[in-house]
Amino acid sequence: MMDDRHVSLAHGNGGRFMREMIEEVFVSHLGDSALDVHLDAVPLTLPSDKVPCITTDAFTVQPLEFPGGDIGSLAVNGTINDLAVSGAAPQALTLNAIIEEGLEMACLIRIVKSLAEAARNAGVHVVAGDTKVVPRGHGGGLYLATTGLGLRDATWRLGLDRVEDGDALLVSGPIGDHGIAVMLAREAFDLSGPVRSDCAAVTPLALPLAKVDGVRFMRDPTRGGLATVAHEIATATSLNVRLSETQIPVRDPVRSVCEMLGYDPYYLACEGRVVAVAAPDVADEVLKLWQSLPDGDGAARIGALSQGAGHVVLETEIGGERLLEELEDDPLPRIC
Amino acid sequence: MMDDRHVSLAHGNGGRFMREMIEEVFVSHLGDSALDVHLDAVPLTLPSDKVPCITTDAFTVQPLEFPGGDIGSLAVNGTINDLAVSGAAPQALTLNAIIEEGLEMACLIRIVKSLAEAARNAGVHVVAGDTKVVPRGHGGGLYLATTGLGLRDATWRLGLDRVEDGDALLVSGPIGDHGIAVMLAREAFDLSGPVRSDCAAVTPLALPLAKVDGVRFMRDPTRGGLATVAHEIATATSLNVRLSETQIPVRDPVRSVCEMLGYDPYYLACEGRVVAVAAPDVADEVLKLWQSLPDGDGAARIGALSQGAGHVVLETEIGGERLLEELEDDPLPRIC
Repeated sequence: MMDDRHVSLAHGNGGRFMREMIEEVFVSHLGDSALDVHLDAVPLTLPSDKVPCITTDAFTVQPLEFPGGDIGSLAVNGTINDLAVSGAAPQALTLNAIIEEGLEMACLIRIVKSLAEAARNAGVHVVAGDTKVVPRGHGGGLYLATTGLGLRDATWRLGLDRVEDGDALLVSGPIGDHGIAVMLAREAFDLSGPVRSDCAAVTPLALPLAKVDGVRFMRDPTRGGLATVAHEIATATSLNVRLSETQIPVRDPVRSVCEMLGYDPYYLACEGRVVAVAAPDVADEVLKLWQSLPDGDGAARIGALSQGAGHVVLETEIGGERLLEELEDDPLPRIC
Repeated sequence: MMDDRHVSLAHGNGGRFMREMIEEVFVSHLGDSALDVHLDAVPLTLPSDKVPCITTDAFTVQPLEFPGGDIGSLAVNGTINDLAVSGAAPQALTLNAIIEEGLEMACLIRIVKSLAEAARNAGVHVVAGDTKVVPRGHGGGLYLATTGLGLRDATWRLGLDRVEDGDALLVSGPIGDHGIAVMLAREAFDLSGPVRSDCAAVTPLALPLAKVDGVRFMRDPTRGGLATVAHEIATATSLNVRLSETQIPVRDPVRSVCEMLGYDPYYLACEGRVVAVAAPDVADEVLKLWQSLPDGDGAARIGALSQGAGHVVLETEIGGERLLEELEDDPLPRIC
């Protein structure tokens, strides 16, 4: 007997129940004419004057749903954002769903709907997909993996190799919202607060920077947070990244939870922010551009690159200095 | 204290241990100049006279290693094969690894080496990747998801819509090897036999068919096996697929295990076979072509399309007929 309110192993076997689940849950909600489930591989139309770029990400966040998002919107936005910070306009996504036997069908449908909405909002098409079902106890309800294809102007390039001594560091909004929202949504903590994940496509924030000469590098600070992006920049350039504690935007409730539980906000994941490195003479222009956009009103100039030995130095509120080490312990596992 | 012989949650946190694992386990063994882990998205070079095609697949096979393959070679070949049967020469892969805390590092390295070897053999590059670590009890050791990009001649098209009444059905080799090899490798069965998975890239079998006029459609029979591919053809065309039991190649040990345990070989997964539909006048040519290739020596003409109501009919050895229904129960979950 099939229990059609929950996913069963038979939904993953390649036969009738799998076909029905794919049609009723995925195809119907994705509602995308670009998705043809009868094809083994899908032809793409790519203009020859652009550079196609590809990226991929897996998502294992717990819980599956949290204030401000869910694993579905996260899987779309997370991959879109890797394209956007690389200067590529997102075009197409592929989707893998590894579903745990027993997941409520209603929950799966909510997540697929949210995923579809995130894709529509960003103007990308889910062009290919695959589902697998693993036995009860072999998965966290649902894991998703997305691969994204985007198009970049052939003339534009950003990269860590373009970062220079004296460049400014900017962030498009407050940090740590995603990490704290997910953490609070876990049952283990009996806290609830007004913190919502910042989960969103950063395309509107990242792509306009293509036109700003002097923008050197962008990255979205996800796992490992701002401090980890700062370390990537410092390691690649052998310059110091100096961050100013008073300039880094952190929402009050995020700061409170961090203080209460001993988290360092600089290591917490964001899912809708951009960190940019820009020449000092265009930093204000970038900041103004961001602040004029709906998701960029909290943008700030937070630091600068300087001669050094590849360290990340936080200038504290009281005028001292603290080294931000490369992350070792995981404050919040399974944040994305 | 880190136990460096097993994967820990800290290997998934975005920080130092994750960076080290990616460098030491993935980058070093993939040994691919196309893989730059410092990029959020990777630019691709695609010739404008070919049609880029994309496909994606997740892999959750248990056990992770089995005679003839492992989840690594399977993840490469499975995705390559979806491209190949679509007429696209595989170029690039992206890789997601969802690793369960506690997986032996030595096992992970063996699998990544095998994956790298499969990719090298097929001439494809792993251009982007992501790793996540889930807590003990939340994964089956390792899940992989791969997305593949291939290039197809612009002039060539195959499709279910080209299949005609009277067309012949062919298979490139014996069926069911993968399903039985994986099943026997599971500890629950105290059987061992000479059955090895057929896990392999079908590129050499599939791509030469591009030049044979009259080849209508190809598919690799994975989950759900030959019967499921036959159903896809029957459903899409509303023709009957008539299969001849005496013509379908099944190895003796596979047949023995099926008889012993009550499996129907027609529903068992292959991972290195191609099913092709061809006009009757080119069927012999396709067969000869396949039989001249190392992986095609067991190729056979196994049936034909005929007027009907979209059924799959097996003509049995003793001259009777049996309907092969669409798969419902899963004989062997987590086969790929």
